[in-house]
Amino acid sequence: MEKKELVYEGKAKKIFYTDHENYYWVEYKDDATAFNGEKRGTIVGKGELNNRISSIFFTLLAEQGIENHFVKLLSPTEQLVRKVRIIPIEVVIRNLAAGSLAKRLGLEEGTPLRHPVIEFYYKDDELGDPMINSSHISVLQLATQEQLEEMKTISLRVNQILTRYLEKREVLLVDFKLEYGITPDAKLLLADEISPDTCRFWDANSKEKLDKDRFRRDLGNVEEAYQEILKRLGGEVHV
Amino acid sequence: MEKKELVYEGKAKKIFYTDHENYYWVEYKDDATAFNGEKRGTIVGKGELNNRISSIFFTLLAEQGIENHFVKLLSPTEQLVRKVRIIPIEVVIRNLAAGSLAKRLGLEEGTPLRHPVIEFYYKDDELGDPMINSSHISVLQLATQEQLEEMKTISLRVNQILTRYLEKREVLLVDFKLEYGITPDAKLLLADEISPDTCRFWDANSKEKLDKDRFRRDLGNVEEAYQEILKRLGGEVHV
Ligand SMILES: Nc1ncnc2c1ncn2[C@@H]1O[C@H](COP(=O)(O)OP(=O)(O)O)[C@@H](O)[C@H]1O
Ligand SMILES: Nc1ncnc2c1ncn2[C@@H]1O[C@H](COP(=O)(O)OP(=O)(O)O)[C@@H](O)[C@H]1O
Ligand SMILES: [Mg+2]
Ligand SMILES: [Mg+2]
Repeated sequence: MEKKELVYEGKAKKIFYTDHENYYWVEYKDDATAFNGEKRGTIVGKGELNNRISSIFFTLLAEQGIENHFVKLLSPTEQLVRKVRIIPIEVVIRNLAAGSLAKRLGLEEGTPLRHPVIEFYYKDDELGDPMINSSHISVLQLATQEQLEEMKTISLRVNQILTRYLEKREVLLVDFKLEYGITPDAKLLLADEISPDTCRFWDANSKEKLDKDRFRRDLGNVEEAYQEILKRLGGEVHV
Repeated sequence: MEKKELVYEGKAKKIFYTDHENYYWVEYKDDATAFNGEKRGTIVGKGELNNRISSIFFTLLAEQGIENHFVKLLSPTEQLVRKVRIIPIEVVIRNLAAGSLAKRLGLEEGTPLRHPVIEFYYKDDELGDPMINSSHISVLQLATQEQLEEMKTISLRVNQILTRYLEKREVLLVDFKLEYGITPDAKLLLADEISPDTCRFWDANSKEKLDKDRFRRDLGNVEEAYQEILKRLGGEVHV
């Protein structure tokens, strides 16, 4: 497989064409942004850590029957994925109240939710990724109601798989964001990344944050937190 | 029926007990608030206008098979209603983009929506009435999923009835908010008010705003707009 021209560059990854029309070459970057791009910085080694962490999660999910875009690692910071047309909806699953949900519902951070909460956000930087509901999705024709139901079902299954897997590694899966796309043969496929950039991970015992909140909230030891997650997943950390 | 002690005072109405345990005595006030209570004022005659306008809409809906809390007018500013335990959810139905929806989705005010959009807001002044979805409603146990479905179905039917009725009176129903409650015999019932405080009404030809947006946005002629709505509904306006 050959790396070709850039398709697009996002806040965390660059996507390149390959010589095969059904595959993209993804490069994970060290760039970090928060609050809709208002806060910017670099997390040294993040590209490599997230590339490895994402590949571990996607491999686990594939083993557990959740098809996804991940094909294989290409280098420490690169992976091969199946090309999709991304549906501009961020699916958020939450097990404990944190971040915007804690604020929205007036719950203390860390309050367990009696069942997983599912939310949709419109992936649109100019609008600041607003929360939307199925009625908005339908009126904007972002996805069909069938696709939305499928995204919900898969996301809840992903939550079960990841929660159990992380539990054994003494990590609490507080919440996470998923993106889906449509393959050239019109199938819905889990895509993007699953990493400390897109999940809230807390140490199960100390409740210490091991994710991007360390960057967002200036808590320090950002790289160390990402490294700790890779270590807990059994990955080799190169420093 | 006798008026007894105050049950509670809201931003637009006072609710009193009566000598019958299944009924409340409602007094519509001239007070106006906007932006979660940040903006306050008085709209002279609003209490009377909204009392009359609400009673016309609720009577129409009852005739069209939509049971609701309205029983009868008691005075120019008062009406008798069936007592309910209000479900703390505001159901918003929208036919054209305006207000927060226009902002949320990046649509110009007045953009027609390809189908009515339905939204839920958590009726909680301290939290600023945040938008919520069915998953939040379920986790907070604000309503059962069956009640929510019933609220959706009734609200869409109310939209059809009001839209057609207003169309004949050259008024565009842009959007509106409904509240529901549970009666002492555990039935879901449409309650609260339907008025220029809770609906966006535009003149069908000039698109002139005939609702609380005149107060919110300091457009002037606020009382006149409310009077105009009552006039279009065939009500007598006392000035
Ligand atoms: N398999 C895929 N095919 C096509 N695009 C993808 C795939 N996986 C992820 N993407 C998209 O690649 C872009 C770059 O990723 P990222 O840097 O995370 O972007 P963002 O700034 O939107 O967060 C995003 O739009 C993401 O949705
Ligand atoms: N039939 C009813 N039974 C009990 N409470 C009602 C009924 N109809 C409306 N209410 C409630 O009366 C309160 C006062 O109304 P309002 O002044 O509009 O309040 P708010 O400040 O919440 O908008 C509100 O909480 C409203 O939900
Ligand atoms: Mg991203
Ligand atoms: Mg009210």
